[in-house]
Amino acid sequence: MGYMQNSSKEQYIRYTELLQKAADINYASAVLGWDQEVYMPSKGADARGRQLSTLAGQAHEILTSDKLEKLLKALSGKDDLTDAEKSNVRLSLEDFEKNKKLSPAFVEELSKQTSECFNAWIEARRKNDFNVFAPSLAKMISLKRKQADLYGYEVHPYDALLDEYEKDATVAMLDPIFQGIKEQLPPILARIKSSKQVDNSFFHQLFPKQEQWDFSIDVLKRMGFDFEAGRQDYSEHPFTTSFAATDVRLTTRVDEDNYTSMLWSCIHEGGHGLYEQGLPEDQYGLPLGSAASLGIHESQSRFWENCIGRSLDFWKFFYPQLQQRFPAQLGKVPVEAFYKAANKVEPSLIRTEADEVTYHFHVMIRYEIEKALIEGKLDTKDLPAKWNELYNKYLGVMPEDDKTGVLQDVHWSHGSFGYFPTYTLGSFYAAQFFSQAKKEISGFDKQVVNGEFNELLHWLRERVHKHGRRYTSEELCERITGQKLNTSFFIRYIQEKYAGIYE
Amino acid sequence: MGYMQNSSKEQYIRYTELLQKAADINYASAVLGWDQEVYMPSKGADARGRQLSTLAGQAHEILTSDKLEKLLKALSGKDDLTDAEKSNVRLSLEDFEKNKKLSPAFVEELSKQTSECFNAWIEARRKNDFNVFAPSLAKMISLKRKQADLYGYEVHPYDALLDEYEKDATVAMLDPIFQGIKEQLPPILARIKSSKQVDNSFFHQLFPKQEQWDFSIDVLKRMGFDFEAGRQDYSEHPFTTSFAATDVRLTTRVDEDNYTSMLWSCIHEGGHGLYEQGLPEDQYGLPLGSAASLGIHESQSRFWENCIGRSLDFWKFFYPQLQQRFPAQLGKVPVEAFYKAANKVEPSLIRTEADEVTYHFHVMIRYEIEKALIEGKLDTKDLPAKWNELYNKYLGVMPEDDKTGVLQDVHWSHGSFGYFPTYTLGSFYAAQFFSQAKKEISGFDKQVVNGEFNELLHWLRERVHKHGRRYTSEELCERITGQKLNTSFFIRYIQEKYAGIYE
Repeated sequence: MGYMQNSSKEQYIRYTELLQKAADINYASAVLGWDQEVYMPSKGADARGRQLSTLAGQAHEILTSDKLEKLLKALSGKDDLTDAEKSNVRLSLEDFEKNKKLSPAFVEELSKQTSECFNAWIEARRKNDFNVFAPSLAKMISLKRKQADLYGYEVHPYDALLDEYEKDATVAMLDPIFQGIKEQLPPILARIKSSKQVDNSFFHQLFPKQEQWDFSIDVLKRMGFDFEAGRQDYSEHPFTTSFAATDVRLTTRVDEDNYTSMLWSCIHEGGHGLYEQGLPEDQYGLPLGSAASLGIHESQSRFWENCIGRSLDFWKFFYPQLQQRFPAQLGKVPVEAFYKAANKVEPSLIRTEADEVTYHFHVMIRYEIEKALIEGKLDTKDLPAKWNELYNKYLGVMPEDDKTGVLQDVHWSHGSFGYFPTYTLGSFYAAQFFSQAKKEISGFDKQVVNGEFNELLHWLRERVHKHGRRYTSEELCERITGQKLNTSFFIRYIQEKYAGIYE
Repeated sequence: MGYMQNSSKEQYIRYTELLQKAADINYASAVLGWDQEVYMPSKGADARGRQLSTLAGQAHEILTSDKLEKLLKALSGKDDLTDAEKSNVRLSLEDFEKNKKLSPAFVEELSKQTSECFNAWIEARRKNDFNVFAPSLAKMISLKRKQADLYGYEVHPYDALLDEYEKDATVAMLDPIFQGIKEQLPPILARIKSSKQVDNSFFHQLFPKQEQWDFSIDVLKRMGFDFEAGRQDYSEHPFTTSFAATDVRLTTRVDEDNYTSMLWSCIHEGGHGLYEQGLPEDQYGLPLGSAASLGIHESQSRFWENCIGRSLDFWKFFYPQLQQRFPAQLGKVPVEAFYKAANKVEPSLIRTEADEVTYHFHVMIRYEIEKALIEGKLDTKDLPAKWNELYNKYLGVMPEDDKTGVLQDVHWSHGSFGYFPTYTLGSFYAAQFFSQAKKEISGFDKQVVNGEFNELLHWLRERVHKHGRRYTSEELCERITGQKLNTSFFIRYIQEKYAGIYE
């Protein structure tokens, strides 16, 4: 038995070495990806594409190797591993079986297409012309369809893609959720529309870039983001990426004429960043060192952005500082007016700037479009028309051009089909976690009013961050709140919040 | 014969695929290395170290694979390759045989130690304490000694390390060169010392950072550096790195109280950058797509920094622009006074800020120390004392602390032993090329006065850049100037230049 234990330990160590080597390569890819979107000069794109493709191939080779398979199969039967070790082995075997379904050639092709498609999207945005993006996107969609076939699925090809981001999500699970949105949000929206409208015109003054940046750094620090283990930079589209729990990169963009563009996006990315910084360092490269799912990831960003960052209590603390930075712009605006403006509900074109109510229509539109694209019921060339039709139908607005319409999001260029629904799931998890946190943390409101977030961050670390992928989204949700995802938390949160704002 | 040709072609293609895959990984490492020195937060260091180490191992595996060996040996005998293809194969086989001497474990260890050592150097500089750096450095030196043994050498272990950077360089070749410096430069220095001294006190005023930065960008653009295929960022120690000919990164640092700190360093790195951008794109990852040697690389940076950037003609064009940026600081300083100040000769502590005459004593000191460290005649702990002793002996100055003494250069932390001598070789090549360029380009002086560098850049592209590693440094020098490296060009250049400045 002593010998067996040693043998398990040794095998486990060899397994971690393999996984961590693959993680090194994947994190290296993340550095290249970050640089590509943040600093890379335009002519560097082709070389970067091939470099990313090679790295993807190298990592895939390790993650589908016979060596790994043998270790995982040997370790799967072992009893003399800790619970954490067993979880890692179980999850890695699942991943292995999934990875194995894609050939190295397919992985490299997908990676190369991702770089090409991203560059086409950048170019198309610059030219404000979907046609520049269309051929690359069509190729990407056919690759994603192929990927769905390779992964396999029981009901809908889109399920295979959803699984990449959110293990529990399927069309069968999401359709009722979006159906619920279609039923429950419009009456709320109608009541809001018939109330006295909120004035947010003061957001549209000149807010100098550097001051906006400096304030965002202050807020991120206060939230607990560790700038010795991360940083913030500018990019075309805000995102968070990580090269280890000790090196987490946030990005943002700024619009000097629109204050709503930057800050809440920074808080949002900060929420993602806190999750990444909170993953256990000693699980580097292993499943327990990775985030549970994208839905849970998004729950963290939404929690901070909306439940905290768009609350009156939050601004009771931060608003005086903001006024000091922008005395001419905000000196005469009371905090309550600022709070209301930050929560103004108004159907609009840009998802990332949408309010908490209409936001989910943006996601639903993308969800419907993605399903149709993957089913082959919608052709890439008809995408802008379909987009505009759905915006008109659900939000009553119509994009003037591609940049404010179908070209606004980077995700499709990355091949991230099945990703958008996690945004809505994230909001719903966030509302449910928020309700629980307020119950468990005594003096929660007062802490927020005082700009004290240590206990909240600790709560999130303990409840969510430190577990990595140990539990699925649904398991995690049950452990934290005692029940599975329940959308009534979100609806109640929305009702209470907006009742206060729109009287 | 038709079949043979096809077969060679196919093999050649398979060879390029392997080499380019390794290049992808090595360029990815370069991105990680760049980020490490430019943007990485401090806590990211450990993870970055292991990521770089894994990538080094992955590239090494390809470059020492049986697959590559077989292809190279098969291709070596083929007549039906172009001359360029034959050169690539010949050089790759040389590289292969060299790479093969290092085990994968050794390569990963060296890479890991490089990251650790670099971080120790950063920390030591911050604390201004060599002792913080010493243990890492000692370990690095013992690895480099081991590396020299693994490579093998005929006369001196240091020869094996020099070969890494400059194929033709050996102790036997360099000793006489540095002996020449010891004999020929002191009389020039003595004459300068006995002349009327140059005033450069106006450099030590406040020169705001952003203005210095903006001017450096103007100069780099004018030199022909393509900012769509490269960029400039800040780092602790200026350097140039490249992720393809289409993505070349320069870095710089700025001292607001000392104008000499930044601009010439930018021009210097710009010279390196132009070389990298001028390498043939279609030879990506192959020997003919890489620089000839570090000595030749340095010839390009010195050419631009000194022969061009410290010439009176250059400033006749740029000085009015500089005065416009800094009217209070330079408005009353005539261009001749500025030119003289930019060439003031004065023994000093910091190599990167040294004038063209005393610079080579800085290199000689490092050369003597490196030889002694690798021979085992000097112990790491005695390094600061030895450093100070030699600075006192050759330059008559004495560092006040480690930061301005033994800790000033990043190179040893990178394990770059045998690198410094290429700086001196670079200056000598530069002077020899400069003399030739002036002969071949009609109206050379006038072009510089008009800020026109297109013809010069074209000349450098044709003579140096486009050949990659096709010729050795010595062969290249002979092709360009009709003779081997001849230090009398440098001595004459120095004599003429300083005769004008010091009358």
